[in-house]
Amino acid sequence: MSTLQIPSKQSAHKLTLIPGPIEFSDEVLEAMSTPSQGHTSPEFVSTFQSVLKNLRTVFKSEDPKAQAYVLAGSGTLGWDITGANLVSPGDKVLVLSTGFFSDGFADALKIYGADVDVLTAEVGDVVPLPEIEEQLKKEKYTAITITHVDTSTSVVSDVEAVSAVVKKASPETLIVVDGVCSIAVEDLEFDKWGIDYALTASQKALGVPAGLSVSFASARAIEKATARKESVYFASLKRWTPIMKAYESGSGAYFATPAIQTITALKVSLDQILAQGINERFAQHEKASTKFKDELEKLGLKILPVNRKVAAHGLSAVYFPEGVNGGEFIGSLAKKGFTIAGGIHKALAGKYFRVGHMGYSIPAGHIDLLSKAIGESISELKQ
Amino acid sequence: MSTLQIPSKQSAHKLTLIPGPIEFSDEVLEAMSTPSQGHTSPEFVSTFQSVLKNLRTVFKSEDPKAQAYVLAGSGTLGWDITGANLVSPGDKVLVLSTGFFSDGFADALKIYGADVDVLTAEVGDVVPLPEIEEQLKKEKYTAITITHVDTSTSVVSDVEAVSAVVKKASPETLIVVDGVCSIAVEDLEFDKWGIDYALTASQKALGVPAGLSVSFASARAIEKATARKESVYFASLKRWTPIMKAYESGSGAYFATPAIQTITALKVSLDQILAQGINERFAQHEKASTKFKDELEKLGLKILPVNRKVAAHGLSAVYFPEGVNGGEFIGSLAKKGFTIAGGIHKALAGKYFRVGHMGYSIPAGHIDLLSKAIGESISELKQ
Repeated sequence: MSTLQIPSKQSAHKLTLIPGPIEFSDEVLEAMSTPSQGHTSPEFVSTFQSVLKNLRTVFKSEDPKAQAYVLAGSGTLGWDITGANLVSPGDKVLVLSTGFFSDGFADALKIYGADVDVLTAEVGDVVPLPEIEEQLKKEKYTAITITHVDTSTSVVSDVEAVSAVVKKASPETLIVVDGVCSIAVEDLEFDKWGIDYALTASQKALGVPAGLSVSFASARAIEKATARKESVYFASLKRWTPIMKAYESGSGAYFATPAIQTITALKVSLDQILAQGINERFAQHEKASTKFKDELEKLGLKILPVNRKVAAHGLSAVYFPEGVNGGEFIGSLAKKGFTIAGGIHKALAGKYFRVGHMGYSIPAGHIDLLSKAIGESISELKQ
Repeated sequence: MSTLQIPSKQSAHKLTLIPGPIEFSDEVLEAMSTPSQGHTSPEFVSTFQSVLKNLRTVFKSEDPKAQAYVLAGSGTLGWDITGANLVSPGDKVLVLSTGFFSDGFADALKIYGADVDVLTAEVGDVVPLPEIEEQLKKEKYTAITITHVDTSTSVVSDVEAVSAVVKKASPETLIVVDGVCSIAVEDLEFDKWGIDYALTASQKALGVPAGLSVSFASARAIEKATARKESVYFASLKRWTPIMKAYESGSGAYFATPAIQTITALKVSLDQILAQGINERFAQHEKASTKFKDELEKLGLKILPVNRKVAAHGLSAVYFPEGVNGGEFIGSLAKKGFTIAGGIHKALAGKYFRVGHMGYSIPAGHIDLLSKAIGESISELKQ
């Protein structure tokens, strides 16, 4: 098995090039080993304050009444936060589905009693805007969910355009964005586009080990969450809002113990992201994605999205090469030192693979190494 | 400010001697920096398998139908798991309260619609057994909760004795133990005492950075959780049971991305705990606790629990020395390089402090250093 070939302090390991967890920078990994600190110690309060302030830049919000939330959890917990805080049992919710994770969000909302309608896109495409507009005129929805990038298909939705449709057809509908595979890689203008809640997880483009639910709520989302009867405890925005506000203003507060080391790693990663500049980061990912997809095309491979316009920049979902067994292809790359992911869209299971190209792996050159390895594996397996 | 005086690979830092997060061993902290691994990679599957198997030893269960659960979250999430899986809206629950955290558990269960009765102990004491027996005869309870050690008061409950009372008076009542400040420091015989659900968090006696909810469920608890209508998504035992069973049997599965690095650190800590032996660990903590409390007594200090029999072994809650300002006392120890905690029982706020003496800080000698520093601070502040 080959191992990491880029200068790095990290021990030799297979490169994790799935759509999250991604590879982490040396500095982020070192921060994971920060010696113990009390959860209300001045050291940790200062760390958490920096994280909460910098998330405003990542989410592009300047509204002091909006708020970032960092909870021990995963991306999935953001679905619970939506179901338990922003909609009430019986409320109508419109889910735009571009794959497995959009449908998962719908399932989670149903568990919380929402009355969910799903508009499902053609596989590899997005839901057409006129269809969304028509549906919004037909029914009154408390919320609409947009999966910015569905990690199962690598389809990216045009959140700006969908939001404009919602603002016009049904301005009172809350706009919820599942940004698990988009935040810090695809542009999201929280204030400007009028988003109400956007959720992600640490192990995706934020570049930090798994273990954190990271999200951002608008003033009207927080008002709604604060006014409604609580139905959960740990995932209650009403409970967490004063805690996050306290940390962001520089004082400790307690509701449940935060994941101190992982939050410290998030501080380091956000410092690195903002040192580069958030728009520069988006451009870097777009360039790297285009380059990777071009290389694949040269090798005769075809991406799952119907065209490049609806293809995400943080990952690629790609059909297996013709005449090559999928399992053998993934196994061959594992032997060369690369972990990539299989496909998980039920209609296409076994027919495609997924590669994450987010964060540290771009400057570290991992993606270029993988492109080369993919070419070699195809040659070997076609022999 | 003084800093760590024990040979260690860790950078100089204030010793965190609160009742969690505790200090971590070098090996545990190093595991937090494990380079990226896929959540279903053979490397991580093997790690998680070891964790889930070893937790059976920590919880002292040999029932193959019982199951350990490790979720990204905190101790508090265990309250949600109880409320959302083991009791249904309208179910009667009896909460034994020995402090702030017992009352918190009651609040969380009420949010989930449970009809909660609370038996509150005198401050510093436990609820008398005859009172519990009488209440169980008066009402039918779906579940009873016992906070093994209430971190606010340092009172330890006799879970074995309470469980025996429940088994006799109301065998169908589920026995739920909040073991946040007890698991891996106080003996808990899950099978033998007939416990149905016990919950803890990583940053307490398990000796791992915060970020994990760790719990253990009996066969009948899992049956109940599986049969009832789901009311949450992320905290659903029904969803997590097949995932945990898959990892424990050596294959990957997906519901939400696990906190890979923190789980790897948990593997290392469990290996260290089991290398010592779980009963030997209990004895070590009892000895260290007795020594620390003896030292405090010599300094004229008084613990909050009404006697040593109801005083926990992983932490001490202690009244501030007479004639010494509490804030100044904690500040003086901070200057000497120790973080200790204030009191949080509302009836006694500002009147006592809390020290955690769990895990790595015992062999590393941190507690002996703190005893000495406490004596010095008293002398200085009384001048």
